[in-house]
Amino acid sequence: MLHYPKKVWLNGKILDAKAARISVFDRGFLFGDGIYEVMARMGGRFFYEQAHLNRLEACLQKINIDLDIRFLVTAIPKLLKESDLLENDCLLYIQVSRGVAPRKHAFPHDIAPTVMMYATSKTFPEINTINSSVKTMEDFRWSRCDIKTTSLLGNVMANEYAMQNDCYETLLVRKNIITEASHCNVFFVKDKVVYTHPANEYILDGITRQVVLELCDKLKLEVREKGIFKQQMTEMDEAFLTGTSTQIASIKKIDGHFYYKGDEIGEITKNLQRAFLQLKTIG
Amino acid sequence: MLHYPKKVWLNGKILDAKAARISVFDRGFLFGDGIYEVMARMGGRFFYEQAHLNRLEACLQKINIDLDIRFLVTAIPKLLKESDLLENDCLLYIQVSRGVAPRKHAFPHDIAPTVMMYATSKTFPEINTINSSVKTMEDFRWSRCDIKTTSLLGNVMANEYAMQNDCYETLLVRKNIITEASHCNVFFVKDKVVYTHPANEYILDGITRQVVLELCDKLKLEVREKGIFKQQMTEMDEAFLTGTSTQIASIKKIDGHFYYKGDEIGEITKNLQRAFLQLKTIG
Repeated sequence: MLHYPKKVWLNGKILDAKAARISVFDRGFLFGDGIYEVMARMGGRFFYEQAHLNRLEACLQKINIDLDIRFLVTAIPKLLKESDLLENDCLLYIQVSRGVAPRKHAFPHDIAPTVMMYATSKTFPEINTINSSVKTMEDFRWSRCDIKTTSLLGNVMANEYAMQNDCYETLLVRKNIITEASHCNVFFVKDKVVYTHPANEYILDGITRQVVLELCDKLKLEVREKGIFKQQMTEMDEAFLTGTSTQIASIKKIDGHFYYKGDEIGEITKNLQRAFLQLKTIG
Repeated sequence: MLHYPKKVWLNGKILDAKAARISVFDRGFLFGDGIYEVMARMGGRFFYEQAHLNRLEACLQKINIDLDIRFLVTAIPKLLKESDLLENDCLLYIQVSRGVAPRKHAFPHDIAPTVMMYATSKTFPEINTINSSVKTMEDFRWSRCDIKTTSLLGNVMANEYAMQNDCYETLLVRKNIITEASHCNVFFVKDKVVYTHPANEYILDGITRQVVLELCDKLKLEVREKGIFKQQMTEMDEAFLTGTSTQIASIKKIDGHFYYKGDEIGEITKNLQRAFLQLKTIG
């Protein structure tokens, strides 16, 4: 099911995936010292491309990687063309590491960052009909989750915990407050008010999260950017996940608690999914 | 000053450093999904080799990487020979990543881990005469610091903070308690009692830390494995760092506080350094 992309853009060259190789002294490999971004291309354009690129730039700055990303404007279409994906819906992955240097913790200076990108075809459902089960676990990750880094072992372990429990995602709980999931943001609804964790250093401020907040505004839904205590989650009326690839996915079950009978989906979740679909198709 | 090694051992092959390349789909590069180890070779043998290998094995198990490391017994001498380092003091770096697979957070199954090793010559001082200055900063890393992972961006940033402040190391402070440094453990001495943070999930239980605890026992020094509050640090009589490459290094200054006049070193620090030297030379 999972497959390698046809082509990989690596430091200015477009290569077959098998030929895309980096030095073992790349700090992305030695230290997880890098930033990444994932963008969805639907109907011939990237969804909120500028917001993704702005976040990439902001994250690079946060860890002092100096890279002018304007070359992406021409590099990305070239990669899509060589990948035979200009006309297809796809996911674009971009990774920038600090570059190649003899191993030493502190930042080396005057080295060129490594830039790697690839696109894989992806069929996005009009509306994500997954009604997911999720598990909670202690948020044991660092407290700079606002940095979209490739030092992802914490997220990988949290995601694996979901898989081991036949769940779609793991909700992370820090100081008894639900922060986000291993690669999604999480929202709750109670008495028609929409809740999500504030965009501080405990979560990655997802682009889809931002889009959903805009849609709430459009739909005149009251929003509170406020974390929900773990013991409050069973009192909520609805819950859903957001992410670039997930879009908006209903949560039907958290740990032992069911929100719905059978495969129902909450009214506000459904309204947001419909509004999101409209945004994708009309723009 | 820093240089690449002559040779790199990569998945069973010994290559020139420049030729040692991995796929961009290595999970070590995409996710920081790996474990590493560093061992010091002094006077023709690795210092506490078995303890290092046991920790490597334990850490691989903690993140469910399945690798029988017994091949290292023959692989390491081969690498040292090809690196012209059999007779020299050196540092050996070992990294194991989960392996190569299309990108997806959850663990892939049935892939072979990537194993990379190299040795670089290193002159170890008999006694580390550095009398270091250190800075404190909030410990913003994850709470599984017991796992010696390559998802190191937090440690890298903490170390860079030391460099920016012309310091040797950064001491990390979690819930107001000093845990460890960016790549060392830290000890304090007060009224002839030696204090260091307990080996729980907030620190990496360094081999040199363990050796120092053994030496305290030998020297009949009372030890308390107990974190020191940040506000207590100025009340301490002595402070020092430990690490595979650092060995035992005195701390003369933390933030604005000086422990000694000029380049004095505390009595117990000196005694431990001398006992450590004896251990290295006699075994």
